[in-house]
Amino acid sequence: MIYFNCDYNEGAHEKIMERLMQTNMEQSEGYGCDTYCGQARKLILEKCRTKDAAVHFLVGGTQTNATVIAAALRTHQGVLAAQTAHINAHETGAIEAVGHKVLVLSSENGKLTAQQVEDAYQAHIADDSFEHIVQPKMVYISQPTELGTLYTLAELEALSGVCRKNNLFLFVDGARLGYGLTAADNDVTLPDLARLSDVFYIGGTKVGALFGEAVVITNPAIQEDFRYVIKQRGGMLAKGRLLGIQFLTLFEDDLYTEISQYANDLAEQIRETLGRKQVPLLVENRTNQIFPILSDDVLAKLGEKYCYTYQQRVDEAHSAVRFCTSWATKKSAVEELCNDLLEML
Amino acid sequence: MIYFNCDYNEGAHEKIMERLMQTNMEQSEGYGCDTYCGQARKLILEKCRTKDAAVHFLVGGTQTNATVIAAALRTHQGVLAAQTAHINAHETGAIEAVGHKVLVLSSENGKLTAQQVEDAYQAHIADDSFEHIVQPKMVYISQPTELGTLYTLAELEALSGVCRKNNLFLFVDGARLGYGLTAADNDVTLPDLARLSDVFYIGGTKVGALFGEAVVITNPAIQEDFRYVIKQRGGMLAKGRLLGIQFLTLFEDDLYTEISQYANDLAEQIRETLGRKQVPLLVENRTNQIFPILSDDVLAKLGEKYCYTYQQRVDEAHSAVRFCTSWATKKSAVEELCNDLLEML
Amino acid sequence: MIYFNCDYNEGAHEKIMERLMQTNMEQSEGYGCDTYCGQARKLILEKCRTKDAAVHFLVGGTQTNATVIAAALRTHQGVLAAQTAHINAHETGAIEAVGHKVLVLSSENGKLTAQQVEDAYQAHIADDSFEHIVQPKMVYISQPTELGTLYTLAELEALSGVCRKNNLFLFVDGARLGYGLTAADNDVTLPDLARLSDVFYIGGTKVGALFGEAVVITNPAIQEDFRYVIKQRGGMLAKGRLLGIQFLTLFEDDLYTEISQYANDLAEQIRETLGRKQVPLLVENRTNQIFPILSDDVLAKLGEKYCYTYQQRVDEAHSAVRFCTSWATKKSAVEELCNDLLEML
Amino acid sequence: MIYFNCDYNEGAHEKIMERLMQTNMEQSEGYGCDTYCGQARKLILEKCRTKDAAVHFLVGGTQTNATVIAAALRTHQGVLAAQTAHINAHETGAIEAVGHKVLVLSSENGKLTAQQVEDAYQAHIADDSFEHIVQPKMVYISQPTELGTLYTLAELEALSGVCRKNNLFLFVDGARLGYGLTAADNDVTLPDLARLSDVFYIGGTKVGALFGEAVVITNPAIQEDFRYVIKQRGGMLAKGRLLGIQFLTLFEDDLYTEISQYANDLAEQIRETLGRKQVPLLVENRTNQIFPILSDDVLAKLGEKYCYTYQQRVDEAHSAVRFCTSWATKKSAVEELCNDLLEML
Repeated sequence: MIYFNCDYNEGAHEKIMERLMQTNMEQSEGYGCDTYCGQARKLILEKCRTKDAAVHFLVGGTQTNATVIAAALRTHQGVLAAQTAHINAHETGAIEAVGHKVLVLSSENGKLTAQQVEDAYQAHIADDSFEHIVQPKMVYISQPTELGTLYTLAELEALSGVCRKNNLFLFVDGARLGYGLTAADNDVTLPDLARLSDVFYIGGTKVGALFGEAVVITNPAIQEDFRYVIKQRGGMLAKGRLLGIQFLTLFEDDLYTEISQYANDLAEQIRETLGRKQVPLLVENRTNQIFPILSDDVLAKLGEKYCYTYQQRVDEAHSAVRFCTSWATKKSAVEELCNDLLEML
Repeated sequence: MIYFNCDYNEGAHEKIMERLMQTNMEQSEGYGCDTYCGQARKLILEKCRTKDAAVHFLVGGTQTNATVIAAALRTHQGVLAAQTAHINAHETGAIEAVGHKVLVLSSENGKLTAQQVEDAYQAHIADDSFEHIVQPKMVYISQPTELGTLYTLAELEALSGVCRKNNLFLFVDGARLGYGLTAADNDVTLPDLARLSDVFYIGGTKVGALFGEAVVITNPAIQEDFRYVIKQRGGMLAKGRLLGIQFLTLFEDDLYTEISQYANDLAEQIRETLGRKQVPLLVENRTNQIFPILSDDVLAKLGEKYCYTYQQRVDEAHSAVRFCTSWATKKSAVEELCNDLLEML
Repeated sequence: MIYFNCDYNEGAHEKIMERLMQTNMEQSEGYGCDTYCGQARKLILEKCRTKDAAVHFLVGGTQTNATVIAAALRTHQGVLAAQTAHINAHETGAIEAVGHKVLVLSSENGKLTAQQVEDAYQAHIADDSFEHIVQPKMVYISQPTELGTLYTLAELEALSGVCRKNNLFLFVDGARLGYGLTAADNDVTLPDLARLSDVFYIGGTKVGALFGEAVVITNPAIQEDFRYVIKQRGGMLAKGRLLGIQFLTLFEDDLYTEISQYANDLAEQIRETLGRKQVPLLVENRTNQIFPILSDDVLAKLGEKYCYTYQQRVDEAHSAVRFCTSWATKKSAVEELCNDLLEML
Repeated sequence: MIYFNCDYNEGAHEKIMERLMQTNMEQSEGYGCDTYCGQARKLILEKCRTKDAAVHFLVGGTQTNATVIAAALRTHQGVLAAQTAHINAHETGAIEAVGHKVLVLSSENGKLTAQQVEDAYQAHIADDSFEHIVQPKMVYISQPTELGTLYTLAELEALSGVCRKNNLFLFVDGARLGYGLTAADNDVTLPDLARLSDVFYIGGTKVGALFGEAVVITNPAIQEDFRYVIKQRGGMLAKGRLLGIQFLTLFEDDLYTEISQYANDLAEQIRETLGRKQVPLLVENRTNQIFPILSDDVLAKLGEKYCYTYQQRVDEAHSAVRFCTSWATKKSAVEELCNDLLEML
């Protein structure tokens, strides 16, 4: 069985594994206060072209989302998010478990528009009984989204503008950020994210690391006492240097860019193959997730050899599914898949 | 200004006020352990034709909803509710603040169907990543709904059936229950509610009392230790007898029924007047809330003399608003309103 | 049976009951936005000799404590309190239920000292692993304390000084404040409380009202959006004017002072009687709670006629108990009790 | 600088690192559903001589404690623990953040007695206002404790007996369990822990792994839906096999025992050296933590070369500190320390 179901089937990039081996018996400070974390922080700040941001390393995405939101919001405040947002759909209510409502906005392609946010904010303050309603205080978006789509720089600037005008935090979940930064149609950079959001994170788990998310906090209001909240929410790794070493390796020599580009190229290859056979896609995108709509017959046949994720039923005979590539996907596996697709379709 | 904006503008029914005066200097046990609470409990159980239910008295609705849900659910469980549900829309995230997600289902008329609940439940257990999704464990409905509509006995039986089949709790918010029980098109009784739900409450605040909601818990799993949770969530009134005295008065001589019927009759009178002028309603119902769609001109004129609640914009020139009657509404006020409506329309 | 077990056995002062009767059928805005609440707010601010404070009315003490603390603290912050503090001992973990640790300091007489607070604060910031420890951010005291003792003005000023120096909120629970303000040995006034604390409340439930606590918030950081939190935590009474009317009545013509003084006088009478018989007290105080240490024989005999609260075992043959007077205690009941005590002892 | 300050300064045992390298590019199911986790579970169950327990792998201790407690307790329930308990002292209020009070019992040596638990339980149910007090429902102990002490089998059996009699859960935090199981004075085995507790965990982070705690749940009431809670609380590692591989390696060929024994032997060597110089210990124990009381002069000199943890001031001139050995401590480092101690003292 060849796995295309997600982008975290394998371990870590070999350079990371080597570095972990080399440093294994070194003694260091715990909880992210070691020199590797220090160097990784410095490097990430350079890549973001900022000096004032705080950088913290956490283990996983759900943990990071809950920690950031718990640190940023007061009890009566909620977070605006698309229906498909990971925090709404796939974290077992982690945000509600820390006491905050996810204020859901509808979205076809996983993205929110600045207008939607403005409307939601205005609707709140215009309501006579606004104090009986959760106060929108943060906007959560993912880049790329859960559907693999991307915000353009213009869209991101518009969102950021609405947020700043209305005193809302903008929080960008970058669990797959590498695949966004290197997508063919991307025009958003790390410095843009640092400049336009209040807090965002750079995903490691899905982009070359064993695990790990690097949170970049530019807004001082969220920076304060953040490490207390990491500890409280169970995200403070005792051997924190494991995170520092991984992010240091990913950002030295632009490994992060290189391996993300690699995965995107493989995805484009699959997309091209599907296009040759006029296979419709549930959603258009250029990142490492592909959402073809295929007949149930073809899916059954594919399923004998390839592992993919079921997304949703489209009509009586067709379903949308998800294929992912990653830094670890083998070229030969993609070629095999493409050949099989050409044959079956 | 004449207030039709809600059903809690005035104090309490005169019989309640008299009883509170008479008993004012009596000494009694606190926290709901007095004899008045005891008698009220007994009377409510009789009206529900059950012996095994637990009856508790709380002060207000938001408090009651949060307390019941906190008592019933484990941390990873959520509550299915209509988009318009009070717990979703108008309690400042009280349910999320106790850690639980409101799992929203769409609804035009404020009601959920048994099929919707079944579908939501099946979708959850069929999902491969079900453990990454909040587990539906309770269904919250209101009777009447926030739009004044009613579940028929058949609908309630179907909902109850789906809940029992799937091991879900059925929780009925009866903040306006009196106006439901006495509506022209109602076929649901207190014994039906006790038989078909796991927990429901009989609203006092909006139906003749100064304040107070009587929670009837039939499911032993929710009964256990419920008083601890009331105390923890701030709902245990020190002078608990105030609640006992009020509910005792409401349920002796069927005062609750009588005053609810009175309010519904006045609502029907307004509805009839609107009907004579072919005024469309946002939603059809026979309880104490009326949702006419009127032109903004007429609304402006009405607004000089009457207080109503704005509901939603319908088109460029029309809006839906809410008029409420209650046990305290004066017949003369309704007549004046009806005359003015006939004149203006 | 004559009840001396607590100070909330009866209803409300007759002037309050009359006012509630008079205004019963008036129509008013809900949720504390009515004119009675407005007038009561204004009057309380005058009594506190401040203009900038916010005044809110809630129903009960546990609710008020949880609401204030939820509004004031971030997720990693806790509240320093005496072991005997109501929030630590008698609110079923309401503070923990909103996510905050009560940081317990030992106390013999129910009071905290400025030095204890300073030490706790310094210990926190001096600890290398301070981020692994709950951050002290608020000091909770009660005036009078749960043991009926009082902070002197000097003590309160010292506490306030330590709090301001270390950027801690000072929160004063005044559930029995009237009995403190009018105690023979008191030198703290309402303006002192407003000046020295960040938030405090004036108890109504135990001092003449049916229910109700008036929260005075002087610190703008806690004022912001406070009504959202009241609603979320279930403390926003629909018929909010019931609270306004009660506090208006209590603070017009200094009724609050008068009835508190009355209760204290009766307590002094009991204390004097006990003193004549050399009955030791668990704790010295001059407010409405008395804690005599009596032999179990005497207690058994007293228990046949009087209801008191068991406090703690002192030795094999003696226990400390609590007798309370209140605004509602009958002079004749106190005389009877004193006569019986003189006879039995 | 040589680190003796904690037992998580280095990475992982070389056998674990090798295994992680070997399996790095394998594709596997995520979230702990892979075959390595399956094998590790099976092996752990065998070691515990039980078949019915559930085994889950989480990343860290704070996370594990909060997850277990969130899964096990209802909202009004709390957990009895020693003052020194990690959940009370060093998790930034993680337990309170999930809504539960830590009910603190005093302890000199980090251990609770069965009698203390019995007394606390009886005090609760005997209190007239028990519903106003957090209900004790779980007992949390650590083995070894935070002070390196151990429960004997007899003590553990007594605790377990009291818990079962009173329907309390017994939860054993085994973050350093290896160092307990192999201590010179230990008579408790893994099957004993499985038999006597409701849930316990086997620490990996401090005993040879990069990270990871293996939770063994024997009580079905806590087993139900546990994976939902892991996910919600941020503890579900995407590449869950990393945990499986580590625990598999630790429990094959009894590596866990071997490396724990090694650390304990080194600790005994340090203890012996201290004993030769009559250095008093803050607490007697035979596990990998040593708590000598040394003069501030000696400590300053030691601090130039060795990193230790400050524990507490003992008198004007002496403090207690902590030295830890671990699976990774070098024999040469211990020899150097012992020589230096002999010289300095």
